[in-house]
Amino acid sequence: LDCTCTCTCQDKSPLIFVFSVLGFGWMMRSLYVMPIVVVGSSLFFAYWFYRIRRSGAFSKKTINKVVFFPDKATAKLLSRSRKRTNLQGSSLLTLMESIQSARHSLDVCMFTMACKELGEVLIKAHRDRITVRVITDAEQTGAYGSQIEKLRRAGIRVRMDKTTFFMHHKFVVVDNKVLVNGSLNWTNQGVCGNQENVLITNNSELVQPFVKQFEHLWQLYTTPGGLRLN
Amino acid sequence: LDCTCTCTCQDKSPLIFVFSVLGFGWMMRSLYVMPIVVVGSSLFFAYWFYRIRRSGAFSKKTINKVVFFPDKATAKLLSRSRKRTNLQGSSLLTLMESIQSARHSLDVCMFTMACKELGEVLIKAHRDRITVRVITDAEQTGAYGSQIEKLRRAGIRVRMDKTTFFMHHKFVVVDNKVLVNGSLNWTNQGVCGNQENVLITNNSELVQPFVKQFEHLWQLYTTPGGLRLN
Repeated sequence: LDCTCTCTCQDKSPLIFVFSVLGFGWMMRSLYVMPIVVVGSSLFFAYWFYRIRRSGAFSKKTINKVVFFPDKATAKLLSRSRKRTNLQGSSLLTLMESIQSARHSLDVCMFTMACKELGEVLIKAHRDRITVRVITDAEQTGAYGSQIEKLRRAGIRVRMDKTTFFMHHKFVVVDNKVLVNGSLNWTNQGVCGNQENVLITNNSELVQPFVKQFEHLWQLYTTPGGLRLN
Repeated sequence: LDCTCTCTCQDKSPLIFVFSVLGFGWMMRSLYVMPIVVVGSSLFFAYWFYRIRRSGAFSKKTINKVVFFPDKATAKLLSRSRKRTNLQGSSLLTLMESIQSARHSLDVCMFTMACKELGEVLIKAHRDRITVRVITDAEQTGAYGSQIEKLRRAGIRVRMDKTTFFMHHKFVVVDNKVLVNGSLNWTNQGVCGNQENVLITNNSELVQPFVKQFEHLWQLYTTPGGLRLN
């Protein structure tokens, strides 16, 4: 009695075995490892995202500009013509545009304010219902071409440093978000002749100290040491 | 004649089959999809890394500081004592430290240079073989306490604006990487009395224009319009 059996299931190739081990391993890894990977990488990216947002590096509205005076375009302004129409590409125009970009507020801290063009930008902003506040130095209100009296008549609030020291700042904070700061006083000589710089940034680490300092000075100059005009 | 054969290979469970399909799928995905994922994500991260490096947001050395004058600590300096020893925590000390951090070069563009402490910082830097270059305004060299003559005697190169306009900048570029800029002239009144600001940053978008402008002015003041002292 001889019985020969042939099993037909010998097609269980080693490849199938390898794949099944791979598949099982992958599933187990998915079950245990993946959640750790997902949570870990989420935390990692959340941290990066936080740092990036904070630094403003990826904001589409990152502003870091520097303009110098005199530039070729403003050099033409030296002519005493009353109409300075061709400001195209000039440092003065860049400065004016940064002020004109205000939507809510303009906090101006300016030692000497005697540039007609920039005074008019403030008056227009005030008429457009933007909150304009100006701090200046009392000794400089007598400067040739001072715009302070004109700003007051237009209804803009102006406060002054009446101490023997100078309120020597030359900065503007636009909408509490953009800082315009440098060596430039708003005078014809500053805009048209002197070597000057104006730095424009919305880096909050640089802007916020100026927001606080303006509030500090705005309160300071209500006291007898200062002079509150209105 | 009855022959019963039992095949022992019936343990090929459907689970093994499922796993082998999963494993095969995973391997195929690894072969075709993974390279795309790897290359794609590499490009993605490389772009981010570039943006981040460029913005300086992740540099450990990001510098964005603002100091105001007068502060409580510098107010004490108003006393005319010759030794101003206790500068701890003062704005003046922060300013001095930012200048002292120079390793290679100090490009100083200062309208009025009449503060003894800051003059000494420049002279010490020059002795420590740091390249110090100074641009100032000729009309201000006669100012009380002017340090310009002292700087020249120490061997520091000084160039001047002799035009009727002002070289009104008040900035320093440290090692071509850090900008120190604001309303502050280096005078006793500036440091001890006036309302002033100094902004310190290593944001290259803000620093590089000043690096270029210094070179421009450094060349400009070799011409007859300027005055080259040495």
